[in-house]
Amino acid sequence: MNTYSVKAYGTESKEADLKQMNIERRQTTTKDVEIEILFCGVCHSDLHTARNDWGGTKYPAVPGHEIVGRITKVGSEVSQFKVGDLAGVGCIVDSCGTCESCKQNLEQYCLTGFTGTYNGTDEHLGGHTFGGYSEKVVVDADHVLRIPENLDLAAVAPLLCAGITTWSPLKHWNVGPNSKVAVVGLGGLGHMAIKLAKGLGAEVTLFSRTPGKSDDAKQLGADHVVISTDEEQMKSVKGKFDVIIDTVPYDHDVNPYISTLNINGTHVLVGYLGGLENILNTVPMILGRKSVAGSVIGGIAETQEMLDFCGEHNIVSEIEMIKMQEINEAYERMLKSDVRYRFVIDMKSL
Amino acid sequence: MNTYSVKAYGTESKEADLKQMNIERRQTTTKDVEIEILFCGVCHSDLHTARNDWGGTKYPAVPGHEIVGRITKVGSEVSQFKVGDLAGVGCIVDSCGTCESCKQNLEQYCLTGFTGTYNGTDEHLGGHTFGGYSEKVVVDADHVLRIPENLDLAAVAPLLCAGITTWSPLKHWNVGPNSKVAVVGLGGLGHMAIKLAKGLGAEVTLFSRTPGKSDDAKQLGADHVVISTDEEQMKSVKGKFDVIIDTVPYDHDVNPYISTLNINGTHVLVGYLGGLENILNTVPMILGRKSVAGSVIGGIAETQEMLDFCGEHNIVSEIEMIKMQEINEAYERMLKSDVRYRFVIDMKSL
Repeated sequence: MNTYSVKAYGTESKEADLKQMNIERRQTTTKDVEIEILFCGVCHSDLHTARNDWGGTKYPAVPGHEIVGRITKVGSEVSQFKVGDLAGVGCIVDSCGTCESCKQNLEQYCLTGFTGTYNGTDEHLGGHTFGGYSEKVVVDADHVLRIPENLDLAAVAPLLCAGITTWSPLKHWNVGPNSKVAVVGLGGLGHMAIKLAKGLGAEVTLFSRTPGKSDDAKQLGADHVVISTDEEQMKSVKGKFDVIIDTVPYDHDVNPYISTLNINGTHVLVGYLGGLENILNTVPMILGRKSVAGSVIGGIAETQEMLDFCGEHNIVSEIEMIKMQEINEAYERMLKSDVRYRFVIDMKSL
Repeated sequence: MNTYSVKAYGTESKEADLKQMNIERRQTTTKDVEIEILFCGVCHSDLHTARNDWGGTKYPAVPGHEIVGRITKVGSEVSQFKVGDLAGVGCIVDSCGTCESCKQNLEQYCLTGFTGTYNGTDEHLGGHTFGGYSEKVVVDADHVLRIPENLDLAAVAPLLCAGITTWSPLKHWNVGPNSKVAVVGLGGLGHMAIKLAKGLGAEVTLFSRTPGKSDDAKQLGADHVVISTDEEQMKSVKGKFDVIIDTVPYDHDVNPYISTLNINGTHVLVGYLGGLENILNTVPMILGRKSVAGSVIGGIAETQEMLDFCGEHNIVSEIEMIKMQEINEAYERMLKSDVRYRFVIDMKSL
């Protein structure tokens, strides 16, 4: 298969800083579109992959799965896009399309494993996929999203991962105007959870460990802030929430949150992949038919639904724009939670 | 309030055997029915309460909440029952009727706490309620169930607790003809879970630690038996089940079962109130949108639905009939899981 070279930013090993490099993209097939990347959000997964925190990183690694750009080429079989259209690419660039999950538009749960936008298995070129820290990307058109024209494009980028990761559980667990939703943690995911739950009409509460984030949370749309280290405040919301979106990216005790769930309530983990070391108490779960669940990103159709919703409700991410060359510093700041609330790379800096 | 004395079987302390005693029942109010008790199932909760295993037992304790009998008196405001009707009483003899749970027919999750058939707060007489190990019981008619005439009455009794405890999660998590259900543990609850899931049309698998229960499980309706200690067998059902009904009454590791859940699957704990000491791994939960949940008994309307379903499908419990005087020995045998699958007391022995 013919390829061409594009500029990218990536790393050769887990210890090395990211730096400029060239990568190969496939020539646009009849089913693909080529996208000139305008903006790319910076997700924690980018950093984890670059540094091989989860194992399995293939090098060189070019992260980036919150991609917004403009279509520069369209394959002959592609009808839904034309050159010049805005386009988005999230975490998924391919899926089998035939398994039970894919048939239900749940490509994120593809039973053979979806192809990640980076560090996935490249079915076209062999080797592994390269993400959005690059000039251009070539993607199967069925895995490309339409971007509402009315939104700030840079601030749309994080919707492709942080947005859909919180939207999908909100929708799956039927959040609407009569829902009471709580969000644990106010970072890239948490701030989107607040905005989207509020957009869906829910009453939204932020759980935070420290009072410092109260004003920010309320500006983002939270109706209430509960300091989770304050026993009295926790008691005041006992049995209140229908859904809790837990964005905390490390091990933590979920038991105190379960006591704040209403009958039939669900505590959804979206941020932490690993073991919950605290002993889970089944008593309130059984006596209140409560659930602890997990959820990952979302399907293509659901991501489009979320983007359209954001267009209608004028919802975007809160971002800090950086140049491509500032990515290594940005990673360090992310590790210190020093970002409100998502870095987005202006790709013309590459 | 006027009362009258009835014979019962109960215990004066956690160390003492159960023995015959007299207890007071209220005179039937305009909203009550009086039931002559014919059969009473023996639930693990009876034993836990008699021996104060959970704390909070009030003595004398008269257990029994799987009651089947015949109506002997009807209050003037009661229209749904007449003298001579068969009647059942389960775990709930009263509830507030006005909270959000009760308004949704979820009396089992009554926000002010339902009144337990035994060891509950007796709103009429003060003191605490006495259960079905007795000649007669007087119950608010709205908390009394109709019993299908075609079923073996003694074998119906366990439906009032073991039946509804497994029926409620099967229905809540939408089990039907296309469902794949697994049941963990083959005791009083587990054997009912198999029968009811099968009755609902599901493909049913029993998880058991030992091969010894295979034939029994299949006779009860299980399509498959998987030995949970056999790694190969566990692998063969990876990602298979929509719902797992976990009836194990002690702490155990749920992680191996979660790997056998399908996308969107739910592992429902109904048997163990306490802490799960094994570290819960969120990875398969997040990457498969799986849930761990709890569920307790069921509401009055749902219990009636279950009884009617059992009447139509000719489903009853597998029982071993005992005399009232054999209850202490029966408790000892229950502790050794030496019962297939539920003791039922023939109350005419009292």
